[in-house]
Amino acid sequence: MAYTTNDLAALHQYYKQQLLESTIPFWFPRSFDTAHGGFLLMRDADGSLIDDDKAVWIQGRATWMLSTLYNTVEPRQEWLDGAKLGYDFLNKHCFDTDGQMFFHVTRSGEPLRKRRYFFSETFYVIAAAAYAKASGDETAADNARRVFGRCLEYASGERKLTPKFTGTRPSRGIGVPMIMMNTAQQLRETIGDPRCDDCITQWIVDIEQYFVKDDIRCVMEQVAPDGSIIDHIDGRTLNPGHAIEGAWFILHEAKYRNNDPHLIALGCKMLDYMWERGWDKVYGGILYFRDVYNKPVQEYWQDMKFWWPQNETIIATLLAYQMTGNEKYAQWHQQIHEYAYSHFRDALHGEWFGYLHRDGRVAQTAKGNLYKGPFHLPRQEWYCMQLLKCYAQ
Amino acid sequence: MAYTTNDLAALHQYYKQQLLESTIPFWFPRSFDTAHGGFLLMRDADGSLIDDDKAVWIQGRATWMLSTLYNTVEPRQEWLDGAKLGYDFLNKHCFDTDGQMFFHVTRSGEPLRKRRYFFSETFYVIAAAAYAKASGDETAADNARRVFGRCLEYASGERKLTPKFTGTRPSRGIGVPMIMMNTAQQLRETIGDPRCDDCITQWIVDIEQYFVKDDIRCVMEQVAPDGSIIDHIDGRTLNPGHAIEGAWFILHEAKYRNNDPHLIALGCKMLDYMWERGWDKVYGGILYFRDVYNKPVQEYWQDMKFWWPQNETIIATLLAYQMTGNEKYAQWHQQIHEYAYSHFRDALHGEWFGYLHRDGRVAQTAKGNLYKGPFHLPRQEWYCMQLLKCYAQ
Repeated sequence: MAYTTNDLAALHQYYKQQLLESTIPFWFPRSFDTAHGGFLLMRDADGSLIDDDKAVWIQGRATWMLSTLYNTVEPRQEWLDGAKLGYDFLNKHCFDTDGQMFFHVTRSGEPLRKRRYFFSETFYVIAAAAYAKASGDETAADNARRVFGRCLEYASGERKLTPKFTGTRPSRGIGVPMIMMNTAQQLRETIGDPRCDDCITQWIVDIEQYFVKDDIRCVMEQVAPDGSIIDHIDGRTLNPGHAIEGAWFILHEAKYRNNDPHLIALGCKMLDYMWERGWDKVYGGILYFRDVYNKPVQEYWQDMKFWWPQNETIIATLLAYQMTGNEKYAQWHQQIHEYAYSHFRDALHGEWFGYLHRDGRVAQTAKGNLYKGPFHLPRQEWYCMQLLKCYAQ
Repeated sequence: MAYTTNDLAALHQYYKQQLLESTIPFWFPRSFDTAHGGFLLMRDADGSLIDDDKAVWIQGRATWMLSTLYNTVEPRQEWLDGAKLGYDFLNKHCFDTDGQMFFHVTRSGEPLRKRRYFFSETFYVIAAAAYAKASGDETAADNARRVFGRCLEYASGERKLTPKFTGTRPSRGIGVPMIMMNTAQQLRETIGDPRCDDCITQWIVDIEQYFVKDDIRCVMEQVAPDGSIIDHIDGRTLNPGHAIEGAWFILHEAKYRNNDPHLIALGCKMLDYMWERGWDKVYGGILYFRDVYNKPVQEYWQDMKFWWPQNETIIATLLAYQMTGNEKYAQWHQQIHEYAYSHFRDALHGEWFGYLHRDGRVAQTAKGNLYKGPFHLPRQEWYCMQLLKCYAQ
């Protein structure tokens, strides 16, 4: 089955309409915190506030999303003003005196928790970069580049974070090269940075060399420093949605590099391997965790369906289809799109539920909390809408 | 509905038979690690090993269980030898040079992870105390008392642990007074310690004063230092199985204190409140987390059925029934017993599954991992068997 240009035009229209009439209006303007700055994003299904705390990741991601809509969809003043609320709040309240960022702060910006990794910082970089582009604020651009430099030091190990584990069983995770690749891509595509291309090349080499296992058709989530599989519960745990997100970051890079055939092949095989392992043949949708050898997974929510692995798979399959014309990807895209929009979407109040049981029943109704906010779903709808722009009628 | 003496005799027989013919034989002797000491407890449904790492909590708990069986059921040499394997491993490999214990070590005892609380230490205390009684080893008794002293310093705040949160929103959890109460009870009932009675009195005062809310019929899991409810997602999260475990620790204390009527009333109302909030009226069993105001719970496994809340509720309802004669508790005991043994028990290989979906389907098959091992189920079967000893025929 291939998609016709009519199908693709209809998909474009659907993503655009969902993004602009359901997803974004669920969050904004009501989440703008004009009293304290930033956003009030922890909301139940109907939009009522369940907590006025602020998750630093999500403050950054929402700032990125609003700025990106302003930069690429249309220059709505409300989006730029909202992005400024988020950007200012991040600067004013989310950095500790040692330069490391917090993870969780109160409504007024008092710190509650700092974590032992640097993803608050990577989301700050994309927020500041996209906001700099939207606003023309040169300080924001400088801040994005400066904090990106700090992330590079964390990623290389040159700057140390407090370790969570001893040195007994060293490992490397796919998270750092993946998220850094996307951070660099965003930085490059908004305000530009000469460091990005070479770094991205190296992170892709790392992913291919250490995490992609052709012999067992698998993308590992963490491995030993030499890439070998750590045959313990944590080391065996796969995160198909995460690996598929990595796959589309690589396909995105392939496109940027004039459809680099090696990168297309790499991204597609990562998608293939993890669709095979993650797609639920019984109920549909992408499962959260799997064990590389099909042993029991320790994380309790392993067979639930979360919103974001579906979003990442919708992007990856559509991008793979567009770049290869392989009908398999159109078929997969149709499957995941239909599963996700029929099970996660809240037609009554807009946006998606975040957490379903394996069989598709809603497990809990929050639209936003410490981990969920206006990011994976609107990013997917925005990204796919951009991909399909040429089919717009 | 009351239980007849015949019913109680049958229950005694059932718990004894399950403990000695299904639960304990699932774990031992096969889990004794005669090569490296300690126990190999991370096992799939059929007993096959899924990981040879060692969880320090569970090494301590298994040592306590084996010693306790030796002390109270029969002096089997295998149990004492097994307890020595565990006790020696804990001493040799599970303490860091700063005196704090690890959380997770390799098979040979190399440290993998240390955590920012002191529950490895509390389980060491009960292990060493019960082992000291079983073996007559005076050094073990000294070690139990010494590490208990250290736990008292952690609990009072006199000895500091690295904090996980900033000081912005201080809170107190029910976990520390609860687990310390049980630790002190075990210490007192094996080798004795003059510090225990006063401490237990104070922890019960703390629980009653800060966590038990009569106006809303609820036992909170954490509160502000003055006992007020912290109206944020984490502060609202209830753990009914945990509070019910606390209820039976208090009923146990009431019994020790000549059926102290105030403690009986306190334990019973804690059980009443959290049965009302935790019992699943649709499928049966105790749910994992609830929100005090019925808002969405953030923890993903909130509506799953884990093994241990059922074990704690089986003990609490039986003990409440025995101490009050209130038929309601016999009714509840029958409900939870029937639910749990019909859904969790693995009749084929012995022991229980640990993790069910809300509707009772097995979510994953591990019998042992970093968090589950020979503790809650065998403790429940042992405790109930002891409670019902007088009915043995």
